[in-house]
Amino acid sequence: MVREHCLDDLIDALRDLPGVGQKSAQRIAYHLLQHDRDVAQRLARALDGAVAAVGRCSRCHTLTQASICATCSDESRDAGQLMVVETPADQAAIERTGSYRGLYFVLMGRLRPLEGRGLQELGAAELLERSADPQLREVVLATSFTAEGEATAHVLAQALKARGLTVTRLARGVPAGSELEYVDLSTLAHALDDRR
Amino acid sequence: MVREHCLDDLIDALRDLPGVGQKSAQRIAYHLLQHDRDVAQRLARALDGAVAAVGRCSRCHTLTQASICATCSDESRDAGQLMVVETPADQAAIERTGSYRGLYFVLMGRLRPLEGRGLQELGAAELLERSADPQLREVVLATSFTAEGEATAHVLAQALKARGLTVTRLARGVPAGSELEYVDLSTLAHALDDRR
Repeated sequence: MVREHCLDDLIDALRDLPGVGQKSAQRIAYHLLQHDRDVAQRLARALDGAVAAVGRCSRCHTLTQASICATCSDESRDAGQLMVVETPADQAAIERTGSYRGLYFVLMGRLRPLEGRGLQELGAAELLERSADPQLREVVLATSFTAEGEATAHVLAQALKARGLTVTRLARGVPAGSELEYVDLSTLAHALDDRR
Repeated sequence: MVREHCLDDLIDALRDLPGVGQKSAQRIAYHLLQHDRDVAQRLARALDGAVAAVGRCSRCHTLTQASICATCSDESRDAGQLMVVETPADQAAIERTGSYRGLYFVLMGRLRPLEGRGLQELGAAELLERSADPQLREVVLATSFTAEGEATAHVLAQALKARGLTVTRLARGVPAGSELEYVDLSTLAHALDDRR
């Protein structure tokens, strides 16, 4: 009996993608092989291409094919502001707002002490080095508002303030379009504290 | 300014996977490049390997690395029964029950006349050819219980019965573990019609 190892290998590899479980991995693998072999081959080429070409910006650590990314090279950006985000995806979300014209620093995720992900793994040393720029007036901490993201912001804020920098955090409050009745209590309490 | 085409290509290719939208594709691409380049490379290899090695069984059309799949080559299976399914995934689900010992025929999906997917695209001609086997006593139609799956079963049943074959369909009824109160009316009506 032939072991169908190529099919099993594909299902295993798909299951390692974030958000894809055993059932989805099976469904994707069968679909690709039954109907969409072109898509499978295009994905293989795109994965190889991206792994080979996409590196990190030497200034802000975002993912880029250049040695210095387009944002860091853009002289119209305000070098007086530096926003610290957890991921390139978070940076992309901020860019889509069109409301921020400063520069960025992308951490390698957030503090997860139980998984051995401490300050060093985040790139905190590089952030402090980057913050020594004399043009810099303000560091905006835009880590997520989860326990781990808050802890990350707290620790970084202490280190940055110790160097005499102005440190701010994104405002917490009621999301646009929300009815107060349905907003959770913790968000509502923060919105009240931070009222303006 | 550098266009980040490798990253964009990867996001586009991921978005073509079934069940993956723009947001998931972005999240997967950033995750792979930020944390899991090994996973990305393993997936590229698995895709290439599967596309190169996995073909279709010449007898039942399921996905396999052999020219005749393990089920079709298994002489202990009952060649008097042939179950018609829409996909290799459906076949795998039936196999997991351990209740069926006959052979299979895997269609290329189901009838979708509006998308130009007619009998010919499904492989109906090959099914009829396969059904000419003199050992065959019964064809079990196990297409899904959706409008398209029912239409597929109806059309195939007519063609198979015209050749003098016994054609059956999987029973419709109340799912195991269900409370009657919560079962939808159409299922309940079928379960009553098909009572035994």
